[in-house]
Amino acid sequence: MTMTDVLVVKVGGGANVDLEPLLRELAARTEPWVLVHGGNAAMDALTRRVGQEPRYVTSPSGHTSRATDAATLALLQMSYRGQVNNDLVLRLQRLGCNAVGLSGVDGRLWQATRKEAIRIVEGGRTLMLRDDLTGKVHTVNAHLLRLLLDNGYRPVLTLPALADTGEAVNVDNDRAAAVVACALGASTLVILSNVPGLLRDPADPASLVPRIGRDAFAEAQTLAQGRFKKKLLGAQEALAGGVRRVILADTRRATPIADALAGQGTVVA
Amino acid sequence: MTMTDVLVVKVGGGANVDLEPLLRELAARTEPWVLVHGGNAAMDALTRRVGQEPRYVTSPSGHTSRATDAATLALLQMSYRGQVNNDLVLRLQRLGCNAVGLSGVDGRLWQATRKEAIRIVEGGRTLMLRDDLTGKVHTVNAHLLRLLLDNGYRPVLTLPALADTGEAVNVDNDRAAAVVACALGASTLVILSNVPGLLRDPADPASLVPRIGRDAFAEAQTLAQGRFKKKLLGAQEALAGGVRRVILADTRRATPIADALAGQGTVVA
Repeated sequence: MTMTDVLVVKVGGGANVDLEPLLRELAARTEPWVLVHGGNAAMDALTRRVGQEPRYVTSPSGHTSRATDAATLALLQMSYRGQVNNDLVLRLQRLGCNAVGLSGVDGRLWQATRKEAIRIVEGGRTLMLRDDLTGKVHTVNAHLLRLLLDNGYRPVLTLPALADTGEAVNVDNDRAAAVVACALGASTLVILSNVPGLLRDPADPASLVPRIGRDAFAEAQTLAQGRFKKKLLGAQEALAGGVRRVILADTRRATPIADALAGQGTVVA
Repeated sequence: MTMTDVLVVKVGGGANVDLEPLLRELAARTEPWVLVHGGNAAMDALTRRVGQEPRYVTSPSGHTSRATDAATLALLQMSYRGQVNNDLVLRLQRLGCNAVGLSGVDGRLWQATRKEAIRIVEGGRTLMLRDDLTGKVHTVNAHLLRLLLDNGYRPVLTLPALADTGEAVNVDNDRAAAVVACALGASTLVILSNVPGLLRDPADPASLVPRIGRDAFAEAQTLAQGRFKKKLLGAQEALAGGVRRVILADTRRATPIADALAGQGTVVA
């Protein structure tokens, strides 16, 4: 097994984001990389197609996540794994890149601790949500990723993860990407979404925070909105696990990876 | 790369079939194997959940297949790839088997020729169906399968395949399993479904045809009903590609693989 530095890239699953520039950049890169992706927009669309309404919950610390019962988990597998993952692999293949899609269940790639219960805030009250199929990735099968990378394949990863208790569980893909980067000893993790980075004022792209030091996470979290809180948490966990820098950057550019690596975005280091 | 004989098993995706005995047998086997699976029942169910009706077409030679426009292909990915494949991998993992799910798009595993048009019979007339996203697998990436097998992983495969023209296409999983068996130099291909094998009288399990010689395919095809025709075609293609014997056997047994290997079913050789 080689120990070449691997670039780990996470891309969000938001609606109306053109991923073609990112995929072209990935296909053209010479160093090994791993792509972790979301699929929220596809999941919300499928949920509505089968006549249901997506349900999100908020934790007391302000993190939002999807309430995940067994029926929701089945839809997550269909949308993230069946639709988005297969589509990304297909598009990379068309660009000449030998991508291989995997979920966290394949080869025990993402082993997770299932949460026994999660605390949520609803109507001003704090409640316990039990039987939720969510978890947190604690171990990554780096052997399988290295095996594929060393043989010219490019892994494209998404949820679900495999809980130690045997269930498939919903996990946060940003935080999972952080554990992947740590397990591979990656020096850099790029987290792309449809915003320029952490903004002091969500309505003003010019209010970008260019840099967050490792002692400034608490302050940064007070600025973060919605799902961006999870990205900051992932960045914090990545640094704690040995990643040198995490760059929170914008997918909606002609060369999103090159721009991120050049420091355009919020650099966490 | 070793050249150990690999057992290739295809299991159908019919409704109400308990796959637990098969999965337990697979998890306990010591020789390397590859599982190829269908997902018709899950696909029909998802199609109806999104408010559509499954549509099948029949060729002039009596083969039935699913009409596959782009919307249908998206649902195929969700059901076969997202739901059934991930569920089988999860259940094998629970049984201690390090399964890895792949579609034919991953690592260019199943390269296919897209059919330009298919001839169908509708209301007694022969019509040409164009723009159908179906194809036939011509090449299997045996390197990727051997890489996984040699490192202790067990591949679990399903559609779609990757057409030479760049699209994901629907393919027949029985015939794809035959190409997998040929590419791996497998001596045996076991094709399991919810019937005991080829029956002279579909209503009478005692009318099982125990053996079909390689010169008797034409006669056997006159007995086959519906989707069993594709299984016979797959068996014929497997033998032509070097597989020594194909066993068409029953999934609904306590030890379906052991029984099949003992010759219970229709042995094609």
